[in-house]
Amino acid sequence: MATKGAEDAGVNDTGPSEVKDKPLSSDELDKLTRYFHATLYLCLGMLYLKENPLLREPLKREHIKPRLLGHWGSDAGQSFTYIHFSRMVKKYDLVISGPGHGAPGLISNFYLEGVYSETYPNKSEDVEGLQRFFKQFSFPGGIGSHMTPETPGSIHEGGELGYSISHAFGAVFDHPKTIALTIVGDGEAETGPLATSWHSNKFLNPVTDGAVLPVLHLNGYKINNPTILARISEDELIKLMQGYGWTPYIVAGSNLEEMHQAMAGTVEKCVQEILHYQKEAREDGKVYRPRWPMIILRSPKGWTAPRKVEDHYLEGFFRAHQIPLPKVHADNEQFKILEAWMRSYKPDQLFTEEGKLIPELKELPPKGNKRMSANPITNGGTIRKPLKLEDFRKWAIKVTKPGTLMAPSMNTFGEWMADIMKRNPTNFRLMGPDETESNKLSAVYAVTKKVWMGGYLPEDEDGGNLAPQGRVKEMLSEHTVEGWLEGYTLSGRHGLLNSYEPFIHIIDSMVNQHAKWLEKCAEVSWRQQVSSLNILLTSTVWRQDHNGFTHQDPGFLDVVANKSPEVVRIYLPPDGNCLLSVMDHCFRSTNYVNTIVADKQLHLQYLNMDDAIAHCTKGLGIWPWASNDAGAEPDLVMASCGDVVTQEALAATALLRQHLPELKIRFVNVVDLFKLMPHKYHPHGTTAEEYAALFTSDRPVVFNFHSYPWLVHRLTYQREGQQLMHVRGYREKGNIDTPLELAIRNGTDRFGLAMLAIDCLKGVLGNRGSAARERFEKEKIDSMAYAYETGLDPEDFTGWTWPF
Amino acid sequence: MATKGAEDAGVNDTGPSEVKDKPLSSDELDKLTRYFHATLYLCLGMLYLKENPLLREPLKREHIKPRLLGHWGSDAGQSFTYIHFSRMVKKYDLVISGPGHGAPGLISNFYLEGVYSETYPNKSEDVEGLQRFFKQFSFPGGIGSHMTPETPGSIHEGGELGYSISHAFGAVFDHPKTIALTIVGDGEAETGPLATSWHSNKFLNPVTDGAVLPVLHLNGYKINNPTILARISEDELIKLMQGYGWTPYIVAGSNLEEMHQAMAGTVEKCVQEILHYQKEAREDGKVYRPRWPMIILRSPKGWTAPRKVEDHYLEGFFRAHQIPLPKVHADNEQFKILEAWMRSYKPDQLFTEEGKLIPELKELPPKGNKRMSANPITNGGTIRKPLKLEDFRKWAIKVTKPGTLMAPSMNTFGEWMADIMKRNPTNFRLMGPDETESNKLSAVYAVTKKVWMGGYLPEDEDGGNLAPQGRVKEMLSEHTVEGWLEGYTLSGRHGLLNSYEPFIHIIDSMVNQHAKWLEKCAEVSWRQQVSSLNILLTSTVWRQDHNGFTHQDPGFLDVVANKSPEVVRIYLPPDGNCLLSVMDHCFRSTNYVNTIVADKQLHLQYLNMDDAIAHCTKGLGIWPWASNDAGAEPDLVMASCGDVVTQEALAATALLRQHLPELKIRFVNVVDLFKLMPHKYHPHGTTAEEYAALFTSDRPVVFNFHSYPWLVHRLTYQREGQQLMHVRGYREKGNIDTPLELAIRNGTDRFGLAMLAIDCLKGVLGNRGSAARERFEKEKIDSMAYAYETGLDPEDFTGWTWPF
Repeated sequence: MATKGAEDAGVNDTGPSEVKDKPLSSDELDKLTRYFHATLYLCLGMLYLKENPLLREPLKREHIKPRLLGHWGSDAGQSFTYIHFSRMVKKYDLVISGPGHGAPGLISNFYLEGVYSETYPNKSEDVEGLQRFFKQFSFPGGIGSHMTPETPGSIHEGGELGYSISHAFGAVFDHPKTIALTIVGDGEAETGPLATSWHSNKFLNPVTDGAVLPVLHLNGYKINNPTILARISEDELIKLMQGYGWTPYIVAGSNLEEMHQAMAGTVEKCVQEILHYQKEAREDGKVYRPRWPMIILRSPKGWTAPRKVEDHYLEGFFRAHQIPLPKVHADNEQFKILEAWMRSYKPDQLFTEEGKLIPELKELPPKGNKRMSANPITNGGTIRKPLKLEDFRKWAIKVTKPGTLMAPSMNTFGEWMADIMKRNPTNFRLMGPDETESNKLSAVYAVTKKVWMGGYLPEDEDGGNLAPQGRVKEMLSEHTVEGWLEGYTLSGRHGLLNSYEPFIHIIDSMVNQHAKWLEKCAEVSWRQQVSSLNILLTSTVWRQDHNGFTHQDPGFLDVVANKSPEVVRIYLPPDGNCLLSVMDHCFRSTNYVNTIVADKQLHLQYLNMDDAIAHCTKGLGIWPWASNDAGAEPDLVMASCGDVVTQEALAATALLRQHLPELKIRFVNVVDLFKLMPHKYHPHGTTAEEYAALFTSDRPVVFNFHSYPWLVHRLTYQREGQQLMHVRGYREKGNIDTPLELAIRNGTDRFGLAMLAIDCLKGVLGNRGSAARERFEKEKIDSMAYAYETGLDPEDFTGWTWPF
Repeated sequence: MATKGAEDAGVNDTGPSEVKDKPLSSDELDKLTRYFHATLYLCLGMLYLKENPLLREPLKREHIKPRLLGHWGSDAGQSFTYIHFSRMVKKYDLVISGPGHGAPGLISNFYLEGVYSETYPNKSEDVEGLQRFFKQFSFPGGIGSHMTPETPGSIHEGGELGYSISHAFGAVFDHPKTIALTIVGDGEAETGPLATSWHSNKFLNPVTDGAVLPVLHLNGYKINNPTILARISEDELIKLMQGYGWTPYIVAGSNLEEMHQAMAGTVEKCVQEILHYQKEAREDGKVYRPRWPMIILRSPKGWTAPRKVEDHYLEGFFRAHQIPLPKVHADNEQFKILEAWMRSYKPDQLFTEEGKLIPELKELPPKGNKRMSANPITNGGTIRKPLKLEDFRKWAIKVTKPGTLMAPSMNTFGEWMADIMKRNPTNFRLMGPDETESNKLSAVYAVTKKVWMGGYLPEDEDGGNLAPQGRVKEMLSEHTVEGWLEGYTLSGRHGLLNSYEPFIHIIDSMVNQHAKWLEKCAEVSWRQQVSSLNILLTSTVWRQDHNGFTHQDPGFLDVVANKSPEVVRIYLPPDGNCLLSVMDHCFRSTNYVNTIVADKQLHLQYLNMDDAIAHCTKGLGIWPWASNDAGAEPDLVMASCGDVVTQEALAATALLRQHLPELKIRFVNVVDLFKLMPHKYHPHGTTAEEYAALFTSDRPVVFNFHSYPWLVHRLTYQREGQQLMHVRGYREKGNIDTPLELAIRNGTDRFGLAMLAIDCLKGVLGNRGSAARERFEKEKIDSMAYAYETGLDPEDFTGWTWPF
């Protein structure tokens, strides 16, 4: 049998190829240099000046910002790259900037192109506008020192590092005309998420997707250390990028003239290669994975700064990372160096009397939407089209009597998912880390396959579900698939990430950052709304009994719930029809992070479709068919949130009603978690009256919760009667268990809940309660003994249905 | 100036070198094959059998476990690798296994070596013991389907993927005689953390550290997809590993005889190379970074299973991932195939009548602690020596009057840290993602540098603080440094990770998994206690006003607080002396995840050393010098937890006392967060009486908290008077701010707290309260206006000291 690696038809695996020598005329070279200097002047202006923006008077201390903030280190390299890409941009779209705090390098370009002033008229292209443009940078009420939502032309925040390549790929999937120039810092390149995201090229179809042109910027230093990739040998570096499947071209040096010529030629060569591969694939039908070009730009950190200040290295060393001359206020020498340095860019020759870039240079950048900073893709809401959704009721599970039918909720959703993918063949992507089939969504493979641009083997025909045209994207990197989805939705499309619940914590920080991005976008009037980031969590804690303790963690909800109420939503549909209704809502929504938690196993069904829609629309409510308190105040409220725990809460209710029929029990189910919060803290929150109408304010509540129990306490802490709320949930107790045993360990099982209810009602129930309690305790112990003996749960657990 | 990459002196960058042909005699080959078959037989036994372990009677349905769980996919490859390493193990130590669910491949070896039976006498080496060994696998009350703490010889859980290489490096740092064989699954290799961890070789000193020998196991498939690295061309694969700085040797195929010969020769070659480089470095003083060897093992997924079953591929395809014949209970054909397959390994010829491996094969594995599964390093507590700690009081900040001295808490701790590193030159490591200097711990560089095995440039002499012998480890990958620290402590040593607070969420999931590992270890009697994992968070939210919204997230505490109370601890020292006292406690502790949150800026100091020790020992307490309720019940309790918020709470207290002198205010500070919890829920928790003696049960409490406010509500929700607790904390409000403005946005500022207190005491204060409130409101607005104008906070904010 074959065990050798399958080969894919790369055509250019011979390493770096030739680049045109000196493509720039001396006139072009001169203009590019002066334009470059203008951007660098603006960078320093942003870092230092609050007044006297064009140094038309001698620099004085009071012109300088009192608190110096921002980063100089990679500005020159970023601006340099941007300018060279702009040169040819009439052929392309979109810029995404990777490195962290080097925003001035790009923002300076956005200003010179005019986009900044069009977006923010008071940052006009004149002396006053420039002064305001400088002052607002890293200043209260102004903009951050990295790319933020307030900056036009950006869909990628520079705050947390690691996601530039995956965001870029997300943005070009299904945008066949787009090339994303992606500047990757050599600090960022050390992060795990970035290190594996180079492999995204195995998931890009050259026919239907655009291309990513990464520029790995070997700036040399991080905050305080050299970078790994800048210090390994060139041989290792080239092999590494070739090993990742790219064709690297190196532009290295510090001499401006040589660097301009080299970069101009290299960018042109790369663009030609990209167009050549696309043409081959699109016209000649050669759908394969080319070794796409990428650029390694090796330029000094803090390029064009003084090489040494006070006998310490500045240019080309880590000291250039943030403010290059930090002591200008106190130190006369540094103050003088700053003025001389700023004047060395010759602002008087670069700007008109009015304060605008001189016409000769103003002509350099492209116009209109060709300016990368004005690319509509970077304001994805402007090009977003609603998803085409068939009525989800077509996939309804037929529920005639609540709690008696077993059906696979997730498979049912998978059937609808297939229809969605059929109706939206260029507008929707399903992402997952190798779990879509395990998560029971494989119905989609009847419509489309998983994209795979790697090699193929004969056995792939035997259910491998791979195809170059596939629209499902799976790579065993939660970081990469999440990054793709963020890039895809931010650039105006729709999608869903499906993942095992326990390992979603891997991308806690990414989701945090995305939520922060969305929240700021909502404050920026010109940003149009983008599709919500939809995260479907399945293979949940209560059915990870067999995989054990490491696979049990429902705590992602706590992380999400810390983000702004304006942007986060959490849904725990109790059954299949509710799952359909919730997903329909999520697919139509914009600017949220929607987290949906649903089990993938065969599951008891409760609500018919009409009831499910009504229930999900309210977000929480009483289930009359499971309650016996009609027309009266209940003795006890049994509540649940989450599918598996709802079944146990219902079983507990049934036990209580069977053995203590005099008890009046109200059953409440919560789908929309934030309904528990007071209205003033969350837009979905309920008023005190609404809350009390469900939970009462003076009766004990036994609440069975899918996740860690204290989240419910946190959400309800100000509610009247909160001290009567008894929440059960996952308490970090697990090993290799059966489902019932796992529930028992954590107190979320039917017996435990029923006993808790009896404890709450001690005064009311007396001896009858004690007798029932003993019986439940015995049943619990017997069930566990059976599991230890057989490895299975008793049949009256697994086959349980609602008895009334 | 130099912009070309610095070269380091690699000696073997020419690619794969030659391996000895056919090193095994036919007798050795035969024995190895039979031993291999014995392990595979055990693997299938674990997956399927609960009785009839050696198939001494015909297989019956009732012999098979009712619920089939576990993974077959990579078992053969893992066992194969283990056996070949065992062959030479008299020269080496330690095994770490990377791939997820392939535990049977290794556990079967541990059993055959006898270690399993020594550890668990009832899993003896006889028929009964074997039956119990089989049954417990993936069975309630038994062990998990991946490497867990219950399995001897393991320090690396296979539950979440991505950390095998970083754990292995952590284990061999400062263990110069150890070679860690590290099996990396090709699924795991797609994760971000694993993808960047290959670069760990730039941080390994061949003189003082051991070596890692990775075996990249190209098993070909994940759950449901081919793997990237198994499907790229061999050319790309080799270049990738060379680019990462390794020398790859490929062993590929499925023919047992050829594979044994190739693996035997390759392992020997790799070991020789490692010893050669170590000798060169240690004897000849050539301290450089060799291109260390690694093995690429390409063997079929599910190797030795039937190639096809029912016309579908099994061996060499993703279907072999979990249970290879899932329908043995219902399907006669599969049942027969299973029996024939198990018998094909000839168990009757491999085991004695008693049920023990035959003596001829029993001689193959090494003896005693040479068995990898018995290596003391894998039970790190057995070799752990306490840290040598000078009395931290030596570094005390001299505080004569509380709240009047500004001093740098973190720098002070850094001075002590330097002393610790001096006293523990082979036993302690400080890790960080490029932030140790920024985090004000650079005093350590007077004692030791940052390890750097990459190339050097002349400017490194100018404050670069790099050296091959350095003991500080910095790489811009939170995943890698955290993985190193986990491996380092689990193998018996000590350490500290320092990180920016906002980006610690990047490793939420790693910390979760480590906490789970520690919790299970505590249940395993033979596991000795290891050093706690110490995580120091600084550059905290309240001083990220200038970096902005993306750098503001104190929510790691919520993630940690979800883990078992037995293993997690959270400390928020309010000042420098408390920080010293807390760190001393953490460095002495074992088996915890300690999270310490402390600001790195110049900070107001409150307690002299004696008071600090007393305060930290209690974990929380009244500060009498800040209170004026002596001998009486207070009108209000002002409480704080966290350094910056404590200063604001004190300033609010001062405002109230100045303007409303009749108010009796008690000031309470919390260092040990879990003190807030009821004692029954956390070992550090307080009783109802202890809690009420501080917070009262009937007076309003204004609590200023470092992190998200609801965490305090969650911890105190059952406390009497909880409805009177008003918590302020970070509410996800931030942009580019000044420190005061950021506090005001979130309501944690002095004015906001003072106004909240007045609102709580409306009934008591009347008009006097309203007047004071108006005044505070005005001061707040004026302060913000000043910040917007100047970019600075008013001096009476930045220079504030305790006035009484």
